[in-house]
Amino acid sequence: MENFEYYNPTKIIFGKRTIEKIGEELKLNGFKKVLFLYGKNSIFNNGVYETVTNSLKNNNIDSVEVGGIKPNPVLSKVYEVIEICKKEKIDAVLAVGGGSVIDSAKAIAAGASYDGDIWDAFEGKVSLNTSLPIFTVLTLSATGSEMNAFAVITKENEKKKWAFTAGVSSFPKVSIIDPSIQSSLPIEQTTHGAVDAMSHIFELYFDGTDNTDIVDEYSEGLLRTIIKHTRILLNDHKNYESRAQLVWAATLALNGSNGTGRKWGDWATHNIEHSISAYYDIAHGAGLAIMFPAWMKYVYKIKPEKFARLAEKVFAITEGTVEQKALSGIEAVKNFYKEINEPTSLADINITEKDIPELVENAALQAPLGRLKKLVKNDIESIFKIALIK
Amino acid sequence: MENFEYYNPTKIIFGKRTIEKIGEELKLNGFKKVLFLYGKNSIFNNGVYETVTNSLKNNNIDSVEVGGIKPNPVLSKVYEVIEICKKEKIDAVLAVGGGSVIDSAKAIAAGASYDGDIWDAFEGKVSLNTSLPIFTVLTLSATGSEMNAFAVITKENEKKKWAFTAGVSSFPKVSIIDPSIQSSLPIEQTTHGAVDAMSHIFELYFDGTDNTDIVDEYSEGLLRTIIKHTRILLNDHKNYESRAQLVWAATLALNGSNGTGRKWGDWATHNIEHSISAYYDIAHGAGLAIMFPAWMKYVYKIKPEKFARLAEKVFAITEGTVEQKALSGIEAVKNFYKEINEPTSLADINITEKDIPELVENAALQAPLGRLKKLVKNDIESIFKIALIK
Repeated sequence: MENFEYYNPTKIIFGKRTIEKIGEELKLNGFKKVLFLYGKNSIFNNGVYETVTNSLKNNNIDSVEVGGIKPNPVLSKVYEVIEICKKEKIDAVLAVGGGSVIDSAKAIAAGASYDGDIWDAFEGKVSLNTSLPIFTVLTLSATGSEMNAFAVITKENEKKKWAFTAGVSSFPKVSIIDPSIQSSLPIEQTTHGAVDAMSHIFELYFDGTDNTDIVDEYSEGLLRTIIKHTRILLNDHKNYESRAQLVWAATLALNGSNGTGRKWGDWATHNIEHSISAYYDIAHGAGLAIMFPAWMKYVYKIKPEKFARLAEKVFAITEGTVEQKALSGIEAVKNFYKEINEPTSLADINITEKDIPELVENAALQAPLGRLKKLVKNDIESIFKIALIK
Repeated sequence: MENFEYYNPTKIIFGKRTIEKIGEELKLNGFKKVLFLYGKNSIFNNGVYETVTNSLKNNNIDSVEVGGIKPNPVLSKVYEVIEICKKEKIDAVLAVGGGSVIDSAKAIAAGASYDGDIWDAFEGKVSLNTSLPIFTVLTLSATGSEMNAFAVITKENEKKKWAFTAGVSSFPKVSIIDPSIQSSLPIEQTTHGAVDAMSHIFELYFDGTDNTDIVDEYSEGLLRTIIKHTRILLNDHKNYESRAQLVWAATLALNGSNGTGRKWGDWATHNIEHSISAYYDIAHGAGLAIMFPAWMKYVYKIKPEKFARLAEKVFAITEGTVEQKALSGIEAVKNFYKEINEPTSLADINITEKDIPELVENAALQAPLGRLKKLVKNDIESIFKIALIK
């Protein structure tokens, strides 16, 4: 087990009819004028917009509304909203949406407290630790951004989809999670979210640290929970109890607790996927469903017993040698993604061999990637080629 | 799943050679004069006293030292130290020890910020939410107090061993956990701690809430980890990796995460045990080893399938009817406690039938106890009688 520090000061308010508490939470913290950030129109259709605005009004909180945050959120929009925050003398940023909106809010909140170019923090040229306070109402579970200090934004002109943090200041102060509102979203958003959450667990589970029984048990429990309840939701989309399990598992998958005692994850596959969704308009979860089994096949020989453990504990595969179990487990991951109608090959999203060199070039910008195996350009190319296979 | 709020702002610093960071953490938070609270002589023998005082000195932190906090800590000592804090104008309380020292620190920190009688908060006559900031260096894992907001203190003259919290202010700001120093303690302190941690998990697991897959998986993983590594430590007391697993599991067992979505636990058995350790000088963990299997036997018929689940998931008992599995699981808990040399009957600590009425009377002061089954005096008496059986 590695030495570690763990700190997570986000307050979670979870359950049915909790969104109406947002105004009171802002008021308790002394805020009077918030930036109300959201994405597309879904919050108008599911009643969330009305609940939030009523709650703000009832607690005498002024707001400046900015909509139009896109999936795979972009830096140009972040820049635009930073200027609004500065001009309007905003107290706090309220993100109402999924990971894209919350990640944008983190970049905006840090950028509004910084005189330079916020992208410098993504490039590692500057280390920030101040942000406007961030509050969130989560409407789509996937990234875990509601309870961690990280954000991923795309710089469009350079096709860089990169991560940043402004340290402790990037943790949301309060995140409200009402699982029931997610049942009105298209089912593929649920399955993309499930894949994203599972991928976060894989990144941590396979980072090569030894003596991690507690967090391995924790990871396996989260994976079994996600698989079980995603299956139920596939046929019973409005099942609240299964939705609540899936939603809370997605938050716990990346709130830091599962990283304790580890080397804090591998993250090569996330970096590789970011290149795909920087070029193509596909969901991050869909990209991960394609790339994670490919990465696993490429690296499993470095620690086959850990891949065999995944097979045993999560998929009840007990027959065969360590290597056979490892391979069966990887196949089981891929089969589960097929079962929930996620793509599992680059061919499924119309990417062919000729598109690969540019993606490899982009992913290699931050190489070497990963920790279990340090991937250089050749490795990344090999993984993309495995991902072509149906 | 129940609606819930979750918030835990304690920063954990975990691992080898971390205790020397305490002075820097206090300095970073701006504190200059601390109350340095500890228990008996063990911190002089294992080097912790010297590490802490050097770290304070190196960071120009003044300290007022108070030792002599006893296991099953008492209110008279808390009163005494509150006066010292007020007189010495203390900035923060630094607890160096196990649950007894940390619990005392919480009561002292709240009492030093309050003009009335701190015991009023235990009796529920007043609700406090202010404390001096609390920092801890954990030297014995068991109670989980290093990462939660609760404390248990005994009012000696009335034999009341009761719990209190001053809300968010009772969370330690920083807790440092170096597992390696616990290997110098007598083995029975390790096994008492393991029983205490397992009991916290049982209190949460058996509180009767339905649809709690995530936290049930989490509980079962923690229990398997504790059982596995306590067995290893029994024969290999200095095994760092097993110590680290056990120590972190004990913290996670009661830091709130395992309560999310539940009704926050049953707690009848803890209340019953508190009566025993209010009268007899026995370790809380030893008392729980006796009383938990007895409570389980008395209540399992209310939710036999949950007791059968424990048997299956933690002890791999798969044969028999639901009721048979439930009973085998309870027997397996008791057998594990025997295996690690914990008492499992009141007879083992020389309590006989004639002693029971007074203990029942004391435990019933806060009745009805529990949640899975609300226990009144008759129930408590029945459980004590089951606990007489070897």
